[in-house]
Amino acid sequence: MSEKMEQYQKVSEEQHKKVQVNPYGPNPSDYLSNVRSFQLIESTLREGEQFANAFFTREKKIEIAKALDDFGVDYIELTSPVASEQSRADCEAICKLGLKAKILTHIRCHMDDARVAVETGVDGVDVVIGTSQFLRQYSHGKDMSYITKSAIEVIEFVKSKGIEIRFSSEDSFRSDIVDLLNIYKTVDKIGVNRVGIADTVGCANPRQVYELVKTLKSVVSCDIECHFHNDTGCAIANSYTALEAGAKLIDVSVLGIGERNGITPLGGLMARMIAADREYVLGKYKLHKLRDLENLVADAVQVNIPFNNPITGFCAFTHKAGIHAKAILANPSTYEILSPADFGLTRYIHFANRLTGWNAIKSRVEQLNLNLTDDQVKEVTQKIKKLGDIRPLNIDDVDSIIKDYHADVSTPKMGATDGPAVDLDETLLDSVKRPRLN
Amino acid sequence: MSEKMEQYQKVSEEQHKKVQVNPYGPNPSDYLSNVRSFQLIESTLREGEQFANAFFTREKKIEIAKALDDFGVDYIELTSPVASEQSRADCEAICKLGLKAKILTHIRCHMDDARVAVETGVDGVDVVIGTSQFLRQYSHGKDMSYITKSAIEVIEFVKSKGIEIRFSSEDSFRSDIVDLLNIYKTVDKIGVNRVGIADTVGCANPRQVYELVKTLKSVVSCDIECHFHNDTGCAIANSYTALEAGAKLIDVSVLGIGERNGITPLGGLMARMIAADREYVLGKYKLHKLRDLENLVADAVQVNIPFNNPITGFCAFTHKAGIHAKAILANPSTYEILSPADFGLTRYIHFANRLTGWNAIKSRVEQLNLNLTDDQVKEVTQKIKKLGDIRPLNIDDVDSIIKDYHADVSTPKMGATDGPAVDLDETLLDSVKRPRLN
Repeated sequence: MSEKMEQYQKVSEEQHKKVQVNPYGPNPSDYLSNVRSFQLIESTLREGEQFANAFFTREKKIEIAKALDDFGVDYIELTSPVASEQSRADCEAICKLGLKAKILTHIRCHMDDARVAVETGVDGVDVVIGTSQFLRQYSHGKDMSYITKSAIEVIEFVKSKGIEIRFSSEDSFRSDIVDLLNIYKTVDKIGVNRVGIADTVGCANPRQVYELVKTLKSVVSCDIECHFHNDTGCAIANSYTALEAGAKLIDVSVLGIGERNGITPLGGLMARMIAADREYVLGKYKLHKLRDLENLVADAVQVNIPFNNPITGFCAFTHKAGIHAKAILANPSTYEILSPADFGLTRYIHFANRLTGWNAIKSRVEQLNLNLTDDQVKEVTQKIKKLGDIRPLNIDDVDSIIKDYHADVSTPKMGATDGPAVDLDETLLDSVKRPRLN
Repeated sequence: MSEKMEQYQKVSEEQHKKVQVNPYGPNPSDYLSNVRSFQLIESTLREGEQFANAFFTREKKIEIAKALDDFGVDYIELTSPVASEQSRADCEAICKLGLKAKILTHIRCHMDDARVAVETGVDGVDVVIGTSQFLRQYSHGKDMSYITKSAIEVIEFVKSKGIEIRFSSEDSFRSDIVDLLNIYKTVDKIGVNRVGIADTVGCANPRQVYELVKTLKSVVSCDIECHFHNDTGCAIANSYTALEAGAKLIDVSVLGIGERNGITPLGGLMARMIAADREYVLGKYKLHKLRDLENLVADAVQVNIPFNNPITGFCAFTHKAGIHAKAILANPSTYEILSPADFGLTRYIHFANRLTGWNAIKSRVEQLNLNLTDDQVKEVTQKIKKLGDIRPLNIDDVDSIIKDYHADVSTPKMGATDGPAVDLDETLLDSVKRPRLN
């Protein structure tokens, strides 16, 4: 090796070391930070079921639960078994799957609900009650001493059954801080596994979250769980800041689906956390399954992945400006901290102004993680162009056509005479049911 | 008035006062906070033009600039006139519109660019240069003394022309803090109007932002502007936290469009800010124009409004869970801090599991702010059902069909014999060009 090459290598190594000091890593002054040790409570099958467009069959719930478990979430939270006969039966069915993730159900702070919940086979029960003046007045109409009494009764009952119990307030940021700390201190003493803070109306801001979690951390010895709605666009940032302050568990749902515009999205939080601690996140969660998981849930609730979704949005890893493109070629880290490869994705050569050719469509097909031959891509391109003659197409239109075409060519034609004979083994049937997941 | 009624009124007033103490308002310990006095630098026509799918004609740029001005943004930032002949001519055309908003253009820190920029008629020039090790090494290859020297030359030149000048670093959070503070201090002394911090790679977190802005605030006397990318979903929260720390101006774009998955979205930031100071936001910005503005830009770049968009997403003001719906009826504030009426929207009765009838479609047409008669709604419902027989429809499909139908019935049929005679006056021509904006 020449002297010049050796010198070059040495410089490279030094630069590499500098890169290792991650400016987006945990703040060393946060002694109680759980940024490097957080856990996920996945609530697509509870909070997500409250999304306007969500109506899951049992089959779909089981499919989603298995996919979440495979992804590596720590807990899966289910709709209260008291909500309907169907909810109860679905909950029992999911408990019997033998998943690695612990199964939770989410109930009101009431013995009627608790008695049903503990019989379903869940690993834990999440109890919630509104503590803000608004909810006490307009929702359940109870005062703090009644709330405390109910909480103690329910918690002791659930604990006596040997399963986990969480107690959460609702609308925590509009609750009286003294009321809050009093009840959290009480339930901590009688031995809850977790206490929860919930920004039910989605208006908390990060520093407010930091202060409340830090204060609560000084009052209780159990774990702290946080639940953030996204009405003002801060759910991901609030989750991160809560972990910095010492919260341990974050409630998420796939694509953030939930009441109104939802809660902290699983994918967005993964983007946030991988920027802070890549090793922990990659070691724990199967990020390369994120896209399929999002597609599964998006299909089930009939929405498209938002164009600007973190990680999986069509432009998340697309570079356009000349100056950016040049630097990206020299070193991707210049404009890209998140590596698309970590998510099983590729950097994207954005398709041109108008959809001109099958190469552009092929690139999009690959980004959607679908398998089509070149001939099939050419055929679907013709379909796209045909519709494009009728009306202007946007990305969602193109995606819909591609996905429909793909579902079509992946489904064996029953009784068709022009197709090859098909062997209906279990794998194939599976692919029929889940055409967008192969 | 009965004694009971009087007592009731008194209680109501007291409750009202309690409501007035906004838990989501500015933190009183932030002495330098600009949460109540922030300004917007709207960058749809600069950062937004770097969005993968953005290719604006001059006509479209002018339409967007006028709509932004009408909305009430403080500054409109345009692509560098050096980018292309077209960019320069478009910039000059927009400067001649006589808008209330100040017009800025965004250039590299170089005299070649500055000389062109000052001749376009802009009110100010935004200068940017990469200060991180990554950009210095892989993008422009300059050291800090060279950067400082160029900055001084450009700033003094622009100032000599009597127009505003901002100096911003790029990738600020991966830059050496001493380098940063040195150059900011230098440019502040020679009299820049603003200095800018940019999270170019979209990985900063709120408390990190707070610390950097607060430190910078202690070093410079000029205003501070912030630019946040949204790769890890924290752009809105970072913007808010920057204002708390004393930044004055936030860069936004409509729907957040920009490089990769974009920057702080105008609509999302409005949601965040109205939760903190409703009076200031409503007094300054025409929030009821937000939906039309978003539709205009979404059409121009061929994307749909994300289903979970703050404020204007299809479910932002939709309530589903029985317990929520009940409390909302009693008092909307229980689960809703943002009032849909502030944005010219209505609370939404979500359409049912499957699209069953024209009433559901009528409700969606109204949410999209389109005008159709009942007969027209029935006709478009038939179209939707027809396509629904062919393939499963999602919300975006339905929206596309509704919007196309609306554009169709709003466009006068030239030379048609079966339609009414049309008077092609200016207003009508305008509606032809902007079918979705009436």
